[in-house]
Amino acid sequence: MVKSTTLRLKTSGNCDIVDITGQVAREVDGSGIANGTVTVFAVGSTAGIATIEHESGLLADLREMWDRLIPASVGYNHNRAWGDGNGHSHLRASLQGPSLTVPFTSGKMHLGTWQQIVYVDFDNRPRSREVVIQIMGE
Amino acid sequence: MVKSTTLRLKTSGNCDIVDITGQVAREVDGSGIANGTVTVFAVGSTAGIATIEHESGLLADLREMWDRLIPASVGYNHNRAWGDGNGHSHLRASLQGPSLTVPFTSGKMHLGTWQQIVYVDFDNRPRSREVVIQIMGE
Amino acid sequence: MVKSTTLRLKTSGNCDIVDITGQVAREVDGSGIANGTVTVFAVGSTAGIATIEHESGLLADLREMWDRLIPASVGYNHNRAWGDGNGHSHLRASLQGPSLTVPFTSGKMHLGTWQQIVYVDFDNRPRSREVVIQIMGE
Repeated sequence: MVKSTTLRLKTSGNCDIVDITGQVAREVDGSGIANGTVTVFAVGSTAGIATIEHESGLLADLREMWDRLIPASVGYNHNRAWGDGNGHSHLRASLQGPSLTVPFTSGKMHLGTWQQIVYVDFDNRPRSREVVIQIMGE
Repeated sequence: MVKSTTLRLKTSGNCDIVDITGQVAREVDGSGIANGTVTVFAVGSTAGIATIEHESGLLADLREMWDRLIPASVGYNHNRAWGDGNGHSHLRASLQGPSLTVPFTSGKMHLGTWQQIVYVDFDNRPRSREVVIQIMGE
Repeated sequence: MVKSTTLRLKTSGNCDIVDITGQVAREVDGSGIANGTVTVFAVGSTAGIATIEHESGLLADLREMWDRLIPASVGYNHNRAWGDGNGHSHLRASLQGPSLTVPFTSGKMHLGTWQQIVYVDFDNRPRSREVVIQIMGE
């Protein structure tokens, strides 16, 4: 059995981190599928899906980590060609990845207590976003 | 239902980036499975699967990003032991990851318009490669 | 069909890398499912799942890579708030990712010869850990 739904988000950009664990858990719980996997997929090339302890200090650390690893200030070819200034957003999204697959049994995902599912918007402006939640199992 | 196929690629190495979105889309479309997930898997320890806007400026940016994050010039233990000079290739592949799972409905993957699926060959020489495309659903 | 099992590990922390390929292969082989995908999921927010050639030089290189990319010595907000000194562990786990999906046919995973599945414990102390192995297919 396969159940699919699309979650819509308004994000503020610049490493906006949105906890979507509750929404994913509700879809799994309401799917009528007891055991299987849920795939969470960020549609678009400037956002990613991650897991992290959703704690304000760590969220700040994550933003600073990205600023160190893939800074906005590098002279990216993408920016010279397209002028939208979000070359770093694309590269961060590509490295983080758009997809996360989580197993569940008896309708409950096997997440740790401090392991939340987050949508990370790397773009440099507010966006309207879609996240596909696909549940498969029996 | 499960459908599995193997895609064969000739790559030139050194962060060769191959757009395989069309091949994956054709497999999904021709699978006879309407709704489910497709898993794209890079066989081997020096390549990965990513999504990115397949635009020449950004592809150059991605190569430069890897040269900054995990340079070839570090004195890797792997290179001292094996002499093949591709320690950086293994580390990049491990961090990028070999697997991508994309949900689809009505035979169409939920990719963004500028979100392509790419095979990234991190090795330091031309290779013959295999990518497994596994489609599961109903 | 869905088969789920939990693997228990004792890890020593500080980028302890445990090869779990054999255990995953045995679960796939013994599942009674011929073709499908296996999802390997690290429960908890300070560990990840990767593939790598399990060779001692490269494992040392991987540890050094993480020390360069996300050092323990940065003054993380998480550490100031919680005092457990593992801010870097959370960030490394978030970037590596907790989930890996591998396709298999005829009961065999499509891994390369030098492509092992590893559990990477990024925490800064010994832990008891759970890894969920979920097999789905027909």
